[in-house]
Parts: sequence; structure tokens; C-alpha cells
Amino acid sequence: MKKIVVLLVLCLLPSLGVFAGDSLMKEARQYFKPIPFGPPEIKDNPLTVEKIELGKMLFFEPRLSSSQWISCNSCHNLAMGGADYQETAVGHGWQRGPRNSPTVLNAVYNVAQFWDGRAKDLKEQAKGPVQASVEMNNTPEKVIETLKSMPEYVEMFKKAFPMDKDPVTFDNMAKAIEAFEATLITPNCKLDKFLRGDETALNGDERKGLKLFISKGCADCHGGINIGGDDYYTFGVEKKPSDKVMAGDKGRAKVTHAKDDEFSFRSPSLRNVELTAPYFHSGAVWSLKEAVKIMGDAQLGETLTDEEAEYIVKFLKTLTGEQPKITLPVLPPSTDKTPKPVKR
Amino acid sequence: MKKIVVLLVLCLLPSLGVFAGDSLMKEARQYFKPIPFGPPEIKDNPLTVEKIELGKMLFFEPRLSSSQWISCNSCHNLAMGGADYQETAVGHGWQRGPRNSPTVLNAVYNVAQFWDGRAKDLKEQAKGPVQASVEMNNTPEKVIETLKSMPEYVEMFKKAFPMDKDPVTFDNMAKAIEAFEATLITPNCKLDKFLRGDETALNGDERKGLKLFISKGCADCHGGINIGGDDYYTFGVEKKPSDKVMAGDKGRAKVTHAKDDEFSFRSPSLRNVELTAPYFHSGAVWSLKEAVKIMGDAQLGETLTDEEAEYIVKFLKTLTGEQPKITLPVLPPSTDKTPKPVKR
Repeated sequence: MKKIVVLLVLCLLPSLGVFAGDSLMKEARQYFKPIPFGPPEIKDNPLTVEKIELGKMLFFEPRLSSSQWISCNSCHNLAMGGADYQETAVGHGWQRGPRNSPTVLNAVYNVAQFWDGRAKDLKEQAKGPVQASVEMNNTPEKVIETLKSMPEYVEMFKKAFPMDKDPVTFDNMAKAIEAFEATLITPNCKLDKFLRGDETALNGDERKGLKLFISKGCADCHGGINIGGDDYYTFGVEKKPSDKVMAGDKGRAKVTHAKDDEFSFRSPSLRNVELTAPYFHSGAVWSLKEAVKIMGDAQLGETLTDEEAEYIVKFLKTLTGEQPKITLPVLPPSTDKTPKPVKR
Repeated sequence: MKKIVVLLVLCLLPSLGVFAGDSLMKEARQYFKPIPFGPPEIKDNPLTVEKIELGKMLFFEPRLSSSQWISCNSCHNLAMGGADYQETAVGHGWQRGPRNSPTVLNAVYNVAQFWDGRAKDLKEQAKGPVQASVEMNNTPEKVIETLKSMPEYVEMFKKAFPMDKDPVTFDNMAKAIEAFEATLITPNCKLDKFLRGDETALNGDERKGLKLFISKGCADCHGGINIGGDDYYTFGVEKKPSDKVMAGDKGRAKVTHAKDDEFSFRSPSLRNVELTAPYFHSGAVWSLKEAVKIMGDAQLGETLTDEEAEYIVKFLKTLTGEQPKITLPVLPPSTDKTPKPVKR
């Protein structure tokens, strides 16, 4: 009987997090935090059910683009890790944007938005692609005219912004989209479970990858809640990557005009990274293993072996979390007052 | 007391369908049938949960196109009545297709698919746009290579086609898409309720519109379960519509090469017609009222008054049914073996 009790206790220990004393877990907790199950408080934009629902409609609304064929979801596809599997984004008239579409998943936990951080938050970000001529190619005036032409939208905006006298505005469109996007969290990946004390969450190979990820220095720029996304770093600090990878892009210097910011980018979150190929601001690299090796050369001044890169990739795949469950909205019909789509 | 009982009985009668003797209801039942709540049996393609789920993934899968950016849902958007609010479809490289995208909703109840009926069923239809150079611009070989590169798809095909030795085939892709599309039914519109005996389902104006729809002759080509979609008719039998509306399209004659089929088209289903502007094979007309008047001239040889057309439009809006509730699928990640997207 005594033996059985001892065995039972031993079996239960891991699930109780008693082995949380595990030294790798201790170390990992110094670098990473599990992502919360929900969104944080958003400055100047309290989340309500009505606002989130409206934001979801707008996120899937092709009539925000002048062609009425491109929605936020066209490039931040929620069926595909919140991105598009394109090197650089496709936009109005099949133009190509200059950079790879970053995932919208967990983006609310990034320090700022876009590769160069030029939008301080998601509501500022949301206004960009709607107006960019290579993306949705629309104007705030036309967006408002479009939304006001559909009584269902006017009603939804009233409910989402009950204190506003004229609630259908470009700013409120952006706020609603921000509210919806803030809910796009992918919690409970294997690493999250590990960080919360479940030492069985990672297998042997994944632990090896995690150890390498920390010891080689990757975690220095890819840490925190989003395993990245929290600051700007010069790409190629040790060795400039190939022209193909750099794509002649000066990064954050385009925003700050500071010499020091040349080739500097916000480090991307590595959550769900296996779903968001191709990699880098240029989208020039399709293989995650290759991307890891390039980062070793460029940022750590170290040539990672194939074996090391493979372990790190195994660890990176533990960052795939539970994808948001999205019910497709039913968008209201256009009316005689709705502007017609621009053909090209 | 007697009075109260009589009153109560009178109040209850409509909901019991006792007024089903209503002469308009009787007449309507000669032309229209309520749409069933689910799909019919599909020839050579028994529906299973696994097949429908796979079909949903494929319907939302941009990697079926060579650009990996266009999915079935791009032009048959389930957030927008199963169509796209475009005059004619946008396709690969922003090319324009020759015809307006028909809605996928309730399409399983059409006699055949495409405006000219050139595909006898949904599985045959599904193979068209995937290969058309102005649409998804892909090849069956590339589609199979793509699907086989992702272990999750291979597993899903095995489950959906358990008797097949090599289940990942172009035919099975089409069968799975057909299975999903067959579930895209919009039951319970006001007319369905009316046909099932609820005489309160239509208000006075809608009844007037229904009466006109029958008496003018519209119901002769737009009847049955789908309020249309059941046969081919010459467009302009009484008076040829404008060149803009006709767009030089000889319709079914392109398929049959028969002189008699010139300018003949499958009558579109009018279910959810308020969600599927613009109208006609050319998508040349945005206003439903204008479309109704054009049909009066072209098919009935009768100039409908504005008032008549407005009543008919009110009736047509009773054909908007409950839209399918779609949870967005989570698509598997591309692998190193997945073909790369074609840029243009």
C-alpha cells in the first residue's frame, strides 16, 4: 500500500508543477512569459462586445478597399496564421507591397506595429493599409461614405460607440478593428505550458532547441510575452545578410531618419512562426531552418550547424498556439448609395 | 367568456396555418417550394462529416491557386451572400473574368452550374476556376503536389475517402468541395415561412410584390425550390437588352453550339438576390429595381411601372434566408515540399 501511494505521488508530481525547479524552466522564465488568454487593456479604446463584433465585420469587409475585393483578412488571413504565405503582400491591381505581411495574431502584445514600428498601436496601424495605394487604395472619405450607405453598419457603429454624436468615423473604424484584433491571441502553446510549470510540455528535442535558443543568444531579441516584437534591432549587426534578404530596405531609418536606425527592424514575434513563412521583412526565405541559420550569421556572428538549427526549429514549433475560433460575419448588403468598386 | 374564446381562437388561427386556404398562398405553392433545411443526396458523392470538413478547408484554401492568394471564397465570399459585389470576377494577376460570379449559396439545388450550365454539378464546377487562367490559374498536378506536401491534408483526405488507395486526387478535391458547398443552404426566408403556412410571414407590400411576380410572369422562369436556377431561357426573348447588359455574350450556345441556344442562360436563383448585386451574367446593373424593369422589357414584353418594380423588389427581399454559420478553418502550414506561389 505504501509503495502504491509513493508511486501515485511520483506520477502526480509533474502535473502539479513540483518539478518546476527544473533548471531549464527556471532559465526560460527569465526570458519568456506565457501569453495571457485574453487581450490587455487598450489605451483610449475600452473593449466591448459590440465593438469587437463590429471590428470583426470590418476586418472581413472587402468594401473598405476601393476595389471592394481586398479586406484585412486578404493579407492577414485568419485561416493561415494571420498572414498570407506571400513574399510581399499582394494589393490593389495585383501590385506588390514592399514588405512581408506580419501576422496579426498576438500583435496587440507588440511594442508597435509594422516592421519599422511606424504605427504606435493597432488602431494607428489599421488606417495604413486601407489608404496605401499598393494595398487597399481607398480614402477615409470613401470608406465613411461606404459604411454610411448601409443602415446595418450605422446601427453597429452607434452600438459600439454609444457616446459619439457621429459614430461612423475613420477613427472609430480603426478603433473597432483594433478591438477585434486585440482578441486574436493564440494561448497555450507548448512553451506556455512549460512556462506555467508543466515540464512534460516539451520533449527532449524541444528542450535541446530551447537550450540552444537561449545559450546562442536568440532569446535576447526574441523574449517576453511575444517571443519577440518588443524592441528594434539592427539586422546584420555581426554580418550583413545577402542583398536578396535585405532587399535594399533601410528599415526604421525610413521613419526616424536617424543614421543609427539604418537596417533596424522591430524583431518579429516568433509565436506561430511555423505558420508564417516566408521569413524576414523581405519574405525572401521560405525555410525556417535557413532563416535560423541566417540569423546566427547575421546577429550572433556564429555559424550554426545543421543539427543546431534543426533543434532550434523544433523548439520554434512549440510556439504554435491555439488558433482563434472565428465565425465568419454576415456583412450587410450594399445599397443604391454604396459607392461602386473601382476596377483598377 | 365565449367572446374571449372566439377572440383567442381567431388570434391563434394564423400561427396554426389555418388561413393556409389564403388564395395567394395556394397560388404561390403552385410555383415555389420552400428550400429544405439541408442538402439533398448527392449522386456519386455521399456526404460525410469528414468530407464536408475537408471541403470547407479547401474552399478557404488560397494554395489551390498558383498565386496562393485566391481561394474559392475570394469570389464566392460566404460573408457576402456567397458572391463578390464585382461586375465580373477578379482573378490571377487582377485579370477580369468574362462573367459575374454566381452565388454558391443553394447552388446545389440548381439544375447545373455556371451561367451556361456547362458543369453538370458542383464537383464538375469546382474543377473549372482552379484551372482557368483568368481565375486561380493552377493545374491539377500542382494542386495535388501542394496538397500532398502537407501531412494534415493527406490525413484529412484519407479520412474523407477511406476506401481510396490514393485519396489525394483532383477528383476527390472537387468532391470534398461539392460536399461542403452542398451544405450552404439558406433556409427559412420569409417566403419559405409563407409557403409552409405562416400567412403573417409576408406583409401587405410583400404580398403585392408576390402577386405581381406571379401575374406578370416572372415566376414562370424563377420558380421551384431555388426561385430560378432550374432551366435555360433566351435572354431578350421579347426585346434585346442593351449591349452593356448583354456584353456580347452568346451564353449557352458557347457550350452547345446550337443556334437556338444563342443568348440563352440558366435563370439565376433569386434566393438572397438582395445580397448578390450587381446583376445579370454581365454584372452590368447594380440596382435591383432596374434589373427587374429590364427583365420586364426583355422577357415579358411589358414596361413595369416604378411602383410595380418597387413592390417586386420588396417581394424579392423576402428571399433572403438564414446565412450559413461558418467557422473559419485552420489551414495546415506549408512545408519545405510545398510549391512556392507564382508571383504573376
